[in-house]
Amino acid sequence: MRLEERGERGLVEIIKKLWKVKSEWVEEGIGDDCAVLKNGFIFTMDSFVEGTHFYYEVYPPYELGYMTLAASLSDIAAMAGEPLCFFLSLSLWKDLPEEWVTNLLNGMQELAEKYSCELAGGETVAGDEIAITIGVLGRAEKPVRRKGRRIGDYVYVTGIPGRSYLGRLALYNEIETELVMCHLRPEPRIREARMLVERYTITSMIDVSDGVLIDLSRLEGEGGIYLESSLFPTDPEIERLCDVFLEDPVDVFLRGGEDYELLFTSPDEIGFPWVKKIGVVREGEGIYIDDKPTEVKGYEHFC
Amino acid sequence: MRLEERGERGLVEIIKKLWKVKSEWVEEGIGDDCAVLKNGFIFTMDSFVEGTHFYYEVYPPYELGYMTLAASLSDIAAMAGEPLCFFLSLSLWKDLPEEWVTNLLNGMQELAEKYSCELAGGETVAGDEIAITIGVLGRAEKPVRRKGRRIGDYVYVTGIPGRSYLGRLALYNEIETELVMCHLRPEPRIREARMLVERYTITSMIDVSDGVLIDLSRLEGEGGIYLESSLFPTDPEIERLCDVFLEDPVDVFLRGGEDYELLFTSPDEIGFPWVKKIGVVREGEGIYIDDKPTEVKGYEHFC
Repeated sequence: MRLEERGERGLVEIIKKLWKVKSEWVEEGIGDDCAVLKNGFIFTMDSFVEGTHFYYEVYPPYELGYMTLAASLSDIAAMAGEPLCFFLSLSLWKDLPEEWVTNLLNGMQELAEKYSCELAGGETVAGDEIAITIGVLGRAEKPVRRKGRRIGDYVYVTGIPGRSYLGRLALYNEIETELVMCHLRPEPRIREARMLVERYTITSMIDVSDGVLIDLSRLEGEGGIYLESSLFPTDPEIERLCDVFLEDPVDVFLRGGEDYELLFTSPDEIGFPWVKKIGVVREGEGIYIDDKPTEVKGYEHFC
Repeated sequence: MRLEERGERGLVEIIKKLWKVKSEWVEEGIGDDCAVLKNGFIFTMDSFVEGTHFYYEVYPPYELGYMTLAASLSDIAAMAGEPLCFFLSLSLWKDLPEEWVTNLLNGMQELAEKYSCELAGGETVAGDEIAITIGVLGRAEKPVRRKGRRIGDYVYVTGIPGRSYLGRLALYNEIETELVMCHLRPEPRIREARMLVERYTITSMIDVSDGVLIDLSRLEGEGGIYLESSLFPTDPEIERLCDVFLEDPVDVFLRGGEDYELLFTSPDEIGFPWVKKIGVVREGEGIYIDDKPTEVKGYEHFC
């Protein structure tokens, strides 16, 4: 069987099943946003490949650096951790201008500075395809897992997912809107996640990388998730761009992706203004929107 | 300026100079085999790209898995550490057979089992080029650095560098020899490194990835390195293949690469049979072979 028939999830399942060697240093291995190590360390690794995740012609290197590090730090946020340092492997064309690399690094540095996150090592290799792989080492006293929701929990989201997707469409079509910056400079919700766990009980959490629906489907625990579309956050600029691109705002919210907002469940009424309740956990299975079962679709590699 | 004019070393220097953000969690950042973190953790990240490091048609996936993980674990050995777990990012063709991936993983697993080194996370993405990025988390009570040699130290090497280089030539030319396995299944010298530091004073150490000469030039400390070519280890199979390929055994020893043997300095007389003395550290600068100064050449990316 070829990988495109398996899809990314299928491939990860195969690897998970095949791998037998265990280490006493790993508390939680493959399957969550980060691996959880002994002593409260967490680690995540992400790759960004030209032609799959970005296009050389479209993405300014400074923003590409910011964006790729933000995506990686977001995995640390999804476990309510803090980043300590990161590692960078760059596969680059031989004839790439040096300036491209320094701009990429400077974009990463702007973001890294906010968290005192040092570039501690890595590698540069020559290749025919630009590829950026980032590994982040972080720390979380009580890492929040993807698994753990209970019947009666509420489902919450930070910010307004969908903005990044519309921003990308605008970027590709050279339309001016503030949403382009939501795509190019997403903020990993590191501080927000820590504020949440300090004040409330968070039973499960994930960040929105592939889209609200597909990322919600990766949460595990009791019952099913019942979303109410009238509760989905939106704003006038989203409405305007949905008109321009003939997109449906509810669809954009559910299937967008790359927002790096947090999706989580909690039994508490959350009082932060940047958090919106979008549903509840009830008896059942799967994900429902306005009481109708929904098919999970979003971005998946190899498909 | 384009990257090919800079070379890999030049690029790493630029990144080192450009990066300002520091973390209190990093004791030693860019520039050694591994980053050294607080609490004795060490971390290394390596990438292997199709067309640059290997060819799909030539390398059986099982051996490729073994080889790439061995190269990564070797960085842990070079600091006299022990591996704890690793992370894997795979960029793969969509139409790659699933079996290729399971064989790759099984090859890694054979090696990982020796060290209870768990695959703790990572990512799979679709790309037009196969790329394997491996991050290894390890631990070293007293990590041996690249810097630290003293005047009067001896220069040592484990095993017989050059075997992997000739093994690669034999593999490409379909010539039968045991050296092919030296190339495809190198052994990271993790146990050897720990035996060395337990018994002797090791003042600096590195592993042979790009070739004895270029890797020796990366060691820092007092004086110059004076090698004596009559001391270089060799064996009959090396002599035989050097005849076949019209290569010079001394050149093969000095410029081969991918052996993952250890190069190190010590003031002690080392008594292990798998260690050979190849030179001394004396007043001076640079590397001398039989008292003649030598130009450092070996494999460098982007050149």
